[in-house]
Formats: sequence, C-alpha cells, structure tokens
Amino acid sequence: MTMAADPTPLAQAMIRCRSVTPADDGALDVVQRALEPLGFACTRLVFGPDDYRVDNLFARRGTAGPHFCYAGHTDVVPPGNVAAWTDDPFSGVVRDGTLFGRGACDMKGGIAAFIAGLADYLAAHPDHPGSISLLITGDEEARSVDGTAKVLEWMEANGQIPDMALVGEPTSRAVLGDTIKIGRRGSLNAFITVTGKQGHSAYPAKADNPIHRLVAALGPLLAAPLDNGSEFFPPTTLQVTGFDVGNTATNVIPAVAKAMLNIRFNDHHTSAALTERLHAALRAAGCSYELIAECSGESFLTRPGPFVDALSRAIERSTGVAPALDTGGGTSDARFIARYCPVAEFGAVGTSLHQVNENASVEELRRLAGSYRAILEEVFG
Amino acid sequence: MTMAADPTPLAQAMIRCRSVTPADDGALDVVQRALEPLGFACTRLVFGPDDYRVDNLFARRGTAGPHFCYAGHTDVVPPGNVAAWTDDPFSGVVRDGTLFGRGACDMKGGIAAFIAGLADYLAAHPDHPGSISLLITGDEEARSVDGTAKVLEWMEANGQIPDMALVGEPTSRAVLGDTIKIGRRGSLNAFITVTGKQGHSAYPAKADNPIHRLVAALGPLLAAPLDNGSEFFPPTTLQVTGFDVGNTATNVIPAVAKAMLNIRFNDHHTSAALTERLHAALRAAGCSYELIAECSGESFLTRPGPFVDALSRAIERSTGVAPALDTGGGTSDARFIARYCPVAEFGAVGTSLHQVNENASVEELRRLAGSYRAILEEVFG
Ligand SMILES: [Zn+2]
Ligand SMILES: [Zn+2]
Repeated sequence: MTMAADPTPLAQAMIRCRSVTPADDGALDVVQRALEPLGFACTRLVFGPDDYRVDNLFARRGTAGPHFCYAGHTDVVPPGNVAAWTDDPFSGVVRDGTLFGRGACDMKGGIAAFIAGLADYLAAHPDHPGSISLLITGDEEARSVDGTAKVLEWMEANGQIPDMALVGEPTSRAVLGDTIKIGRRGSLNAFITVTGKQGHSAYPAKADNPIHRLVAALGPLLAAPLDNGSEFFPPTTLQVTGFDVGNTATNVIPAVAKAMLNIRFNDHHTSAALTERLHAALRAAGCSYELIAECSGESFLTRPGPFVDALSRAIERSTGVAPALDTGGGTSDARFIARYCPVAEFGAVGTSLHQVNENASVEELRRLAGSYRAILEEVFG
Repeated sequence: MTMAADPTPLAQAMIRCRSVTPADDGALDVVQRALEPLGFACTRLVFGPDDYRVDNLFARRGTAGPHFCYAGHTDVVPPGNVAAWTDDPFSGVVRDGTLFGRGACDMKGGIAAFIAGLADYLAAHPDHPGSISLLITGDEEARSVDGTAKVLEWMEANGQIPDMALVGEPTSRAVLGDTIKIGRRGSLNAFITVTGKQGHSAYPAKADNPIHRLVAALGPLLAAPLDNGSEFFPPTTLQVTGFDVGNTATNVIPAVAKAMLNIRFNDHHTSAALTERLHAALRAAGCSYELIAECSGESFLTRPGPFVDALSRAIERSTGVAPALDTGGGTSDARFIARYCPVAEFGAVGTSLHQVNENASVEELRRLAGSYRAILEEVFG
C-alpha cells in the first residue's frame, strides 16, 4: 500500500473557507498557494452574472503531452441545521483520526489528497513526461453553469484540452478503491400541457378530454421499458412525477391537463431523441400540447481502454482492492468533460456526503493521496 | 288540436310563491286548493332533517284501478342574477302572450297545465274508470332525498302505488309534442385514491409510482367503449374529470395520485356492476387504492308498450306531432318512480329552463293542458 504525505492540513485550510456555493471565501487561494510552489501556472477564471459571480482555477505544470487533468470543486452545499452538528461545520477539527467539516468528503478532502499525491509524485519524478493540470471550480453544487463547462470552453480556446481527466468525487462505496465511475446516466425533465375542450361530462362528444389524451400518450411510454440496459448501464427509467388538472366539478370535462416527467437515461439515448419520442407519443394520442424539455446532463460513458485500465491498475496496486466500473448515481461535472476527452471519477467513500457531521478519515485521505500518486505513475509510465 | 282551459292563472299563483328549493312558500297550498274542489283527497308529507325540511303533496281522486299518477315538483332553482332579469323572477308577469318567471317552464307551468287538462277531462268524463293522483314534491332541484323517493315509500306502505306515471318535466325540444322521455341514463361518480411509495426519480425500483398505476388502470377503461349503445340509449360514456398529484419536485416520485370519474350509463349497466368494473381495473394494475362510488341515479327504461303507445297517440292527436321516444339529458325524479311502475316524461319546450327570464308561452301551456287531457282520455279509454 502506498502512503503519501498527509493531505489533512490542506483540507483543513480549505474547510475553514466558508465556500457555500457559489461563494469562494478564499478556498481557491488556498489551492493556488499550494500549487504555485510545485511549479503550476495558475489562471483564475471568473464567470457568471453580477448576482452570481463564480471563481474558478485552472492550473497547469508543463506543456508537453500527454496532458492529465484532475478536476474538482471547492464549493460545498450549505451546512443545513448547524445546531445538529457536533462541531462548527467550518472548523475542520480532527478528532480520533477523523476530519470533520462541510466538504471533508465532498470534496475538499479529495483535492487535498490529489495535491499531496502530486507533491509526492513530483518529488520522486521531477522530470516526468507529459503535463499535469487541475480544473477546480466553485460552481458544481447548484447551477453548474459558470464552472467546469465555461472553464472547458476557455481551455479549448487556449489549447489546454487534456488527453484524459479524473474527477475526484467520492465514488468509493464501502472501502476506498472499490468503485470507479466511468459514466453517468443522463437526466431529462419534461413538462407537458395538453389542451382539450371543456364541456359537460354528460355530453363528451361536444368536448375533448385532455386527461384521456394524456393517459393515452403516457400509457405506451409506461407499458414497456425504454431499453434493457447496456453493457455498463442499468435500463433507462421514465417516471411521471406529476399529473394535475385542478378540476373539482364532477360533471365538468376540464380544458387542460398537465404532466411532469423525469427520465434517467443510459448511453442508448440522447436527450434529443428522447424528447422526440415524447413528441411522437403525444402526437399519436392526438394531443394539442406544449412540451418543455430540460436536460440537466446527457449520459456519457468512457469505455474501458488504456486510460481506464491504467486507473484500475493504479487503484488496485495502491489500495489492494480491484475497483468495479460503475455508472450509477446522479450527475457530476464529468458530463461536461466527457465532451472533450476520456474522463473517469475516483475518490473517497462518500457516506457522509451532504450530511450533518460530514467527515473523512485522516488515514483514508492519506491512502487516497497514495492512489492519486499511483495513478500519475501509471498514466505517465 | 285540443285546447283546454287556460292554466296561466294557476301557474302565476305558483310562480308568486318563492319556492327556491327546498323552500315551499305556499306553492303546495296553491296546488292543493286547486285540487280539492275537483274531488282530490290531499295528504301533505313532510320529510327531512330539521335544517332541510321538505314539504310534499300526494293527492288522489277515487280508489279504483287503473291508477294514473302525474308527478312533478314545485321547487325551483334560484333566480341567479336578479338584475339580469327583465322582471321580478317571482312576479309571474304575462307580456305579449308569454308568461315570465322562475318555474314558468320547469315546472310550475306543467303542473298548472296538468290541473287545467284534468279539470277539462273531469267535466267531460265525470264518471271515468280508474283513479288519478298527483305526486308533487318540493325537493327535486337539489338533493332529491326527501321528495319523490320518500313519498313513494309512503305510497307503497299505504297501498297507493300507481299503475303508470307521467312526469311533467319540459321534455319537448323544438315544438310541443316532439319528444317523450321513456328513460334516462344513470350517472355514477367515482373518486379514486391510489397510494404508492414515495421515492427519488433516479431510483424508481425503491419507490412505487401511483401515477403509473393509475394510468395503467385507466388506460384500458378509456381504450374501448363500455358498450355500443342499446335500442333506446346512446353508448355509455366514461369521463375522467380529475387527475391530481400536487407534486412540484421533478425528481420526486409522489406517494399518492387521485382521479375523479363520471360515468353516464345506459340500460346495459347498473352502478354496482360499473363500480365492480372500476375495482377490477384498479386491481389489475396492482393498485393499493381507495374507491368511493356515488350513484346519483340508476339508468331506467320504460319499454314501448300499451302505456307508451297511449301517450304517443294522445300527444299526436292533441298536438299534430308524432313524438320521438327519447332517453337523453340528465336525471329526473322519474328514476325513483321507475322502481315501482312504468313511467314516462312529457312536457313543454324546455329552452328557457334554469335560465334568466325563464318563460312559457301562454298558448303552449293551453295546448299542453290539452295534451294532458288527451292522455287521460287515452289511458282511461
Ligand atoms: Zn461533489
Ligand atoms: Zn324540473
């Protein structure tokens, strides 16, 4: 097992910045001050409207290929009920070998572990081939608009697109090393309004019942699965999360019926194709309708290959655990990076993520730093 | 064309009683005072709870069979926006040959026409065979609980069930005599609550979506007609008039979904059989549910036969119009009478029923009285 330098002091320094999304409160300065002595050229990239300014950091050491990028975020979710915490959520206290604080797990601890592993790696391999960068955003936990996506646009415009990327989200389930995420499902919300013709329920021929049309449109969509899963994904799921009319008169056929859908889709689909499928179902039911489709993230998959193999080897060598290749869970910023280069996600055990008394084991953070060092060794040969 | 005595003064006297359902305001006294001189034994029957007392009148002349009963109501719907009326809705003014006022058409005018036709008939046939009764209620327009249904129970208990009955609702469509109602569709309301298990839309396997189950239950009910109509009825119609969930979070599978249905059914069905069909559909979709079914009237049909033939002959003879046998429209108190004896409905043109400036043509009321006299002649031979 590889054990790198202790990432805890750096994680504590970050936790003590109250960077509740989209605030920064000095968190990126902490990261930048750790990277500059290691030879990183740091660029701060501020995006967003006046009332939602987001600070981001792009840091790169060297210019040669291959270019490996580590991606993460310093913003955190709010602490919630502060009274329910044992400690101040922003104190970064260590007790009995555990680091407590908002972001300890998701994902200031991960960033600190990467920098600690990186420092170890550079000490041992000062003249390694290729180059290493970090893409650290302050806009992941809420809107995800002026963060990773915008930094990538800047990187593309400036010739800084990496050859491979690793997102340091807490992906491990039970023990460090057990899970790498190589993809994520996409998520599509659809808001449907069907307009019929109001009338009296005794004379339906003179009316057009929008509930009947909506039921007829949804029925076939719900009757059969949209697919049977794919090599790395479970089946796509479609859930009708709302259906509302608001009529209270038993003898009135209402004029309008509304439905709300959420689709979690695998790599068999794109949001555009699914939206067209909804249009087709509504047309087939003869609906006069309006459909608003909002995709919060396309599905993506980084197929097993040299990059994923290198990650797996490094993780097994450093943790003793052979990682499973997983695609479960919600969305992450990896969906933006996947448009540009192979990307996977690996990090700590995420049990306490977004919870009260969020925490990380000091020893696990050191082991995570060792895994990140091992990944750099595998990637650069 | 038979033209009887003018029913207008009696109709005016009734209209001047403000008998907005369930109030009586002397309306039944007006009827009783008109019947007693004609030899009718009058019984007043008061039913209902303390806060909803309903007055009713049963009047019968003679005791021999066959027993013909005329049924109607003196209660009226509220006048609505009084300012929109040309006259006081309870003034019973006659202008240019038209009687105006709430109830002129539905159905104080009809009761007055029956009594006028009856008086004519008795003058010509003082020793007619059989006996004639009137069942006049004050509880038709709203609850229909303490009116005709209760009077019929009293009649049954007292050996007063007629051999045939005619309800004087305004059934004519375009010209007096064009339509007899020999049946009415039934009406059933159903209130369905399906309970599932709340969850996150990303993990539907851990939840149970009640919207999906409700759509699956309703789909087959809506996919095919419940029947193709019957000899005298149009097809049964099922309308979903409500479907509500009340969830606003796109990623939440809600716990409960509710639907509201109205079924207008013909003589192929009973409310009990239809309710069981709804239960079966909900069970087939695996729903955990509650179903509340409320029948506001079973369907009924008086098949063409001697009684309907006699009505048709009398109406054609008196109006010159051959009446169509119809089963359209909403419910009437005939549904209660149908449990005891053959019943049909015939009356004035109902165009202004429940409207502002409700009215009846004075000449049409006289012709209607003539038709009622002709009916008595046909019935008693
Ligand atoms: Zn995170
Ligand atoms: Zn009526």
